[in-house]
Amino acid sequence: MESSGAREWEVVRYEGNNASIIQEEVAEEFALTIMLNGTEFATIVCSPFDIQQLVVGFLASEGVIRFYDEIENFSLDEKLGFAYVEVAKDINQLQTDHSKRLIGSCCGKSRQFYFKSDAKTAKTVMSSFQVSVEQCFFLMEQLQEQSGAFLRTGGVHNAALADSEKLLSVHTDIGRHNALDKLYGHTLVNKVPIRDKMIVFSGRISSEVLLKVSKIGIGVLISKAAPTDLALKLAEELGITAIGFARGNKMNVYTHPHRVKEAVPSTGEDSV
Amino acid sequence: MESSGAREWEVVRYEGNNASIIQEEVAEEFALTIMLNGTEFATIVCSPFDIQQLVVGFLASEGVIRFYDEIENFSLDEKLGFAYVEVAKDINQLQTDHSKRLIGSCCGKSRQFYFKSDAKTAKTVMSSFQVSVEQCFFLMEQLQEQSGAFLRTGGVHNAALADSEKLLSVHTDIGRHNALDKLYGHTLVNKVPIRDKMIVFSGRISSEVLLKVSKIGIGVLISKAAPTDLALKLAEELGITAIGFARGNKMNVYTHPHRVKEAVPSTGEDSV
Repeated sequence: MESSGAREWEVVRYEGNNASIIQEEVAEEFALTIMLNGTEFATIVCSPFDIQQLVVGFLASEGVIRFYDEIENFSLDEKLGFAYVEVAKDINQLQTDHSKRLIGSCCGKSRQFYFKSDAKTAKTVMSSFQVSVEQCFFLMEQLQEQSGAFLRTGGVHNAALADSEKLLSVHTDIGRHNALDKLYGHTLVNKVPIRDKMIVFSGRISSEVLLKVSKIGIGVLISKAAPTDLALKLAEELGITAIGFARGNKMNVYTHPHRVKEAVPSTGEDSV
Repeated sequence: MESSGAREWEVVRYEGNNASIIQEEVAEEFALTIMLNGTEFATIVCSPFDIQQLVVGFLASEGVIRFYDEIENFSLDEKLGFAYVEVAKDINQLQTDHSKRLIGSCCGKSRQFYFKSDAKTAKTVMSSFQVSVEQCFFLMEQLQEQSGAFLRTGGVHNAALADSEKLLSVHTDIGRHNALDKLYGHTLVNKVPIRDKMIVFSGRISSEVLLKVSKIGIGVLISKAAPTDLALKLAEELGITAIGFARGNKMNVYTHPHRVKEAVPSTGEDSV
């Protein structure tokens, strides 16, 4: 397929009471059903490109696979919107876990997970990667500049894999979770080392976003948008540096600030 | 419960290289599992307030109920995040449909639905409601002004039920679909007539958003954000006026512009 992800639409555009008819580019949305070993596994709506990366990342996120090699067969029916995936393992148990609420056996003092599959796949990130404040600002600026479809349609999110110097790959989707799954799939398909990497992201930092980052194994997430409290609790537990509201030369470091260089603020007590 | 939906978090705030430690309000995120007649039906993450409205709207959206009276019992375990709902009907068939991909029996020329439950519950809206361009701008401005949690946390969406003059109720959630489900639940619980009403919304117009609006039975949706092409195709089919990018005194009418007064743009051909 490889659509551009945008489609023309005829619009009545108002500026005050003045109406004119214009052609506008609108983000494409595509319903994709993933058939796993012949059984319906999930239906997601997504942008109609990089579908294989999306499916690989989604299955890894859901704990179905850990490596790309575990996929024995992949085919796509673009017209109907079906991806057919075959894996060697028995999927019955996986399907039960995948949307099953995790209920702690004790008093709820355990981790903030709410799905069984997350408790199995999310891992604490031990990365010693560091990035400077200026690098953070620069990388977010780069993401904004490379967001072609967003600039045209206003309707998509971007997730970029980056080292401390530059963006390495940018992944785009109408769904922010999908953009991260495409990034994850990209690292698995191409065996990209994720040590000393970070993620630069346009979407809000929800618990689901944070869990995906931990599953990928990345230690620094920077976003232009807001976090939720549950995402930050997970970031604290899982060892992830969560940075939000990165706009211009401002940003908020919410958790594990040691990965941001010059991140120890001077207080009255420390000054000599 | 009735949390404010925001929680304080200690943040290292950077402005350029200058760091300071500040207290910031972050949007709360709450994992809620809906148990339907004793069986796990769905787990959603949401803002921790107006939970009953959310559950009622969600179940109506999913085609489990049509009226609030169909709920025979509702109770909430806030601590564990479980809502227990009892309905009179047999839920086995419902559970099969609820996330099941709809596969058209012919050549894919049918409606753009992708879930069986949507095909059963989405309906064409015949409303003769009309709203003027100025009223649209005014209502969107009102929504922005009333978005307290968004202003503080940057992390929530708002959906308001409105007539052509004013906002009647504003529903807030970290998830834009949840904000609409809360609005839907509110109309069902309080038996609010939805004739001659519209929805004023902060989130993007995806297919799922559009389907919810059609299930509620509302003819005009106005958003400050972008639509997708699939949402617009559905809006066309389902008779909904979809308005996007409503910002300041500008907006785009994508479908069924007859509900917007002064919506027929003057063209060269029509001028006398």
